[in-house]
Amino acid sequence: MSDALTELHVRLAEISDLNAAGGLLGWDQQTMMPVRAAESRAEQLGTLGKLVHERFTDDAIGRLLDAAKPAPGSSDAALVRVTRRDWKKARRVPSELAAELARAGALGHQAWVEARERADFGAFLPSLRRNVELKLRYVECFDGYDDPYDVLLDDYEEGMTSAEVDALFTELRAGLVPLIAAIAERADAVDASVLHGDFPVEGQRALVRRVVERLGWSADGWRLDDAAHPFATSFGPGDVRLTTRYDPAYVGMALYGAIHEFGHGLYESQVDPALARTPLGEGVSLGVHESQSRLWENVVARGRPFAGWLHGQLREVFPERFGAVGEEAFYRAVNKVQPSLIRVEADEATYGLHIILRFELERAMIAGTVALEDLPEAWNARMRQYLGVEVPNDAVGVLQDVHWSGGDIGYFATYALGNLIAAQLWERARADLPDLDSALAAGDGNALRGWLGEHVHRFGRTYPPRELVLRATGSAIRVEPFLAYLNAKLRPIYGLD
Amino acid sequence: MSDALTELHVRLAEISDLNAAGGLLGWDQQTMMPVRAAESRAEQLGTLGKLVHERFTDDAIGRLLDAAKPAPGSSDAALVRVTRRDWKKARRVPSELAAELARAGALGHQAWVEARERADFGAFLPSLRRNVELKLRYVECFDGYDDPYDVLLDDYEEGMTSAEVDALFTELRAGLVPLIAAIAERADAVDASVLHGDFPVEGQRALVRRVVERLGWSADGWRLDDAAHPFATSFGPGDVRLTTRYDPAYVGMALYGAIHEFGHGLYESQVDPALARTPLGEGVSLGVHESQSRLWENVVARGRPFAGWLHGQLREVFPERFGAVGEEAFYRAVNKVQPSLIRVEADEATYGLHIILRFELERAMIAGTVALEDLPEAWNARMRQYLGVEVPNDAVGVLQDVHWSGGDIGYFATYALGNLIAAQLWERARADLPDLDSALAAGDGNALRGWLGEHVHRFGRTYPPRELVLRATGSAIRVEPFLAYLNAKLRPIYGLD
Repeated sequence: MSDALTELHVRLAEISDLNAAGGLLGWDQQTMMPVRAAESRAEQLGTLGKLVHERFTDDAIGRLLDAAKPAPGSSDAALVRVTRRDWKKARRVPSELAAELARAGALGHQAWVEARERADFGAFLPSLRRNVELKLRYVECFDGYDDPYDVLLDDYEEGMTSAEVDALFTELRAGLVPLIAAIAERADAVDASVLHGDFPVEGQRALVRRVVERLGWSADGWRLDDAAHPFATSFGPGDVRLTTRYDPAYVGMALYGAIHEFGHGLYESQVDPALARTPLGEGVSLGVHESQSRLWENVVARGRPFAGWLHGQLREVFPERFGAVGEEAFYRAVNKVQPSLIRVEADEATYGLHIILRFELERAMIAGTVALEDLPEAWNARMRQYLGVEVPNDAVGVLQDVHWSGGDIGYFATYALGNLIAAQLWERARADLPDLDSALAAGDGNALRGWLGEHVHRFGRTYPPRELVLRATGSAIRVEPFLAYLNAKLRPIYGLD
Repeated sequence: MSDALTELHVRLAEISDLNAAGGLLGWDQQTMMPVRAAESRAEQLGTLGKLVHERFTDDAIGRLLDAAKPAPGSSDAALVRVTRRDWKKARRVPSELAAELARAGALGHQAWVEARERADFGAFLPSLRRNVELKLRYVECFDGYDDPYDVLLDDYEEGMTSAEVDALFTELRAGLVPLIAAIAERADAVDASVLHGDFPVEGQRALVRRVVERLGWSADGWRLDDAAHPFATSFGPGDVRLTTRYDPAYVGMALYGAIHEFGHGLYESQVDPALARTPLGEGVSLGVHESQSRLWENVVARGRPFAGWLHGQLREVFPERFGAVGEEAFYRAVNKVQPSLIRVEADEATYGLHIILRFELERAMIAGTVALEDLPEAWNARMRQYLGVEVPNDAVGVLQDVHWSGGDIGYFATYALGNLIAAQLWERARADLPDLDSALAAGDGNALRGWLGEHVHRFGRTYPPRELVLRATGSAIRVEPFLAYLNAKLRPIYGLD
């Protein structure tokens, strides 16, 4: 290894350690920290973020990248490519603007919490205006893009463009709207009431633990904690942390939430440990990450084979609730489709329309083709048009999501891209693993875990997301497999055709 | 504020934030972290430590200290004094030696764990030899001391000298040996068996929580978790974290352990928040810190008034065990004196002799007047002489403590100094608070907490430990109040005189 490459590794390892420390401060903040520590924790997070930024954007990193000379095709060649990309992007943003974005995001979050409580979009409008202004200034730091929104997208999904997403979403919407309309005609065909009722949290904890352990969670390298807004994170090999939240009146929340986060955690846990403490040692993009969480949550755990096993677990933990409920009824219940107001509570089919709505509004905000004060009206009109739902107030409408408050504009699309990629991976994995259904019917995710490790996880950020998807699925991101999957599952459940 | 002073504050705040992040990595390691993360956590801790050292020993800090010009007598004057002291000390140690000390400590710890398991001092000897050699090289970095051991002591108790400790310990030993001998004659006078038996951990958890809450712990600013080796730590205002461990066969372990850590945590929690994110914003020395833990654990919670309240709590949580046990019997049980092998299990009276033994051996190790291979023999001879106890093997003898394995030589004395300071503070607090006994008899620690906050805690490191003790107690560290306190408590219990 050249001296420059060695020195680059040393510096990146230190930055990775600082990021891990910052990650732990964040995890702790959401799971363990006493409330009175909020202010000092914000200072600590700010200092870590500033230090990482300073050390990463240092001129020396650029010199080392130029001098590194990794062997073509080697892991170090990928390291240099990825680091150069991140370094160039980070260097383009003046530190005052970066600090201003962070500050406006923190203030915006606070304003949003209060505005949402009072369902008062007007109270949030000045913060949103500020965030959009700053994002436009952020976009101006870059060049060579076709659409300003591309700059924002690229932060979450490297190399993805607005035009591509637009084409995918047009096709997706065209497939979803008639399917959802047909299901709406037969809404009573599925009864999900068995999932609602009295589910003591201690029982749910035992159930969730049992399920994730069967999937591959183990106490020697993972944690599972409670959080108000569930997430997964990792601080290095053998340290993956999931969170979930428990609703004592609905058993689906914690169970499917934990399986979702398990998918994220599994991705991080199966990155090649040789990539640890480098920028390559983590999931490659939000879209690919979300494909993992949704594959396990929806495709596996709401699929017929695994749902059978899951039903057996529910019967054991809650015999009085599930004793008289058959596998098939349970399977139908967890796949109920119902247009609703709230994205995070949406089913697999309507979810995409919630995302398309947000993507369209974000593009309009950045293009300046919608006045920000008109957003609630634009939101409500699309909810009516796409989902046939009337929005009673902004708290359950335009104010429902946290993202814009913190300045995260360009993020939403990755959720739907994750669904598309998950369906493509699933198609491929099923072709490669003929016994997959019978394994999942026994709750055994071993083969799928191995397949994902081999084709997706181990590479970390070695390949750009576009190349990784191509290698793993044989094609670019496509809509057709997802629509085929949804139709194949939902049409029989709802007795369509 | 001068520009230099402002800049100094900014830099010290960042270092404080990094220390907090490192502290959280350490807390998490001992309470939450999955075992497989051990290696990556060690890297993260190493990076944080290195970064803090680099940033703190920077030339710029020295220039800012010279240019700061704080108002005499101001809090900033104390800040400059304390920071200059720490900075000078840190700068005297070459970074290679600092790294070598850390490395030898980590390796020594591993060797010690294995040697203790096999009760094989010889297996630990090379590591101990290395640690002592490095400590001697460390001492050589300094000058102006009377005794090389003073350099080590000063790291734990600023300004304390070997000669002073020696004088205090000579007096202490002279008071303890006859008292313990007299008690040994009447060993059967106290029966502690009520504390041993079957105490389900869930009940103990409820008891411990109830007790620390009554003392001042509250979930909005504190945590209480399990740890194999209990400790307390704090990451800033409103974030104090205690740990304890549960022995299902002995109720005293978790209960008194938690009260001990509460004392440490209370100190940190009552430092003036204006000192947060500066080197002044924490406890001033190990001795003063230990005075707080021992004041609450021993003086308060093993004192007659509070023991009465505690007995009521035990009766409520474990009615079948304590229903037929009176307050007085409980009070006597928690004050049983019995020479034993293990320091951390020793009672309040014999504890001091365990410390004196270690202090004498450490001085001899550093002076070169004992050959390291002869340590077990020297240890066992003193155990016989001071406590009348035969050491059956080195695991429960010279290998019992973790300190030397990590290179912590000079630390032990502070435990006994803590006992002395605690007795002095207690004398003073009782004089100032005439209703203290009746408050404690109701489990109410409010007045004492306020008194300690006012006279000790709020200052953080504003005054050197010597000056703080003088201000709070009216005298230097003295032996007499501790011996008077012990005699006043134990002689009646054992029917002496």
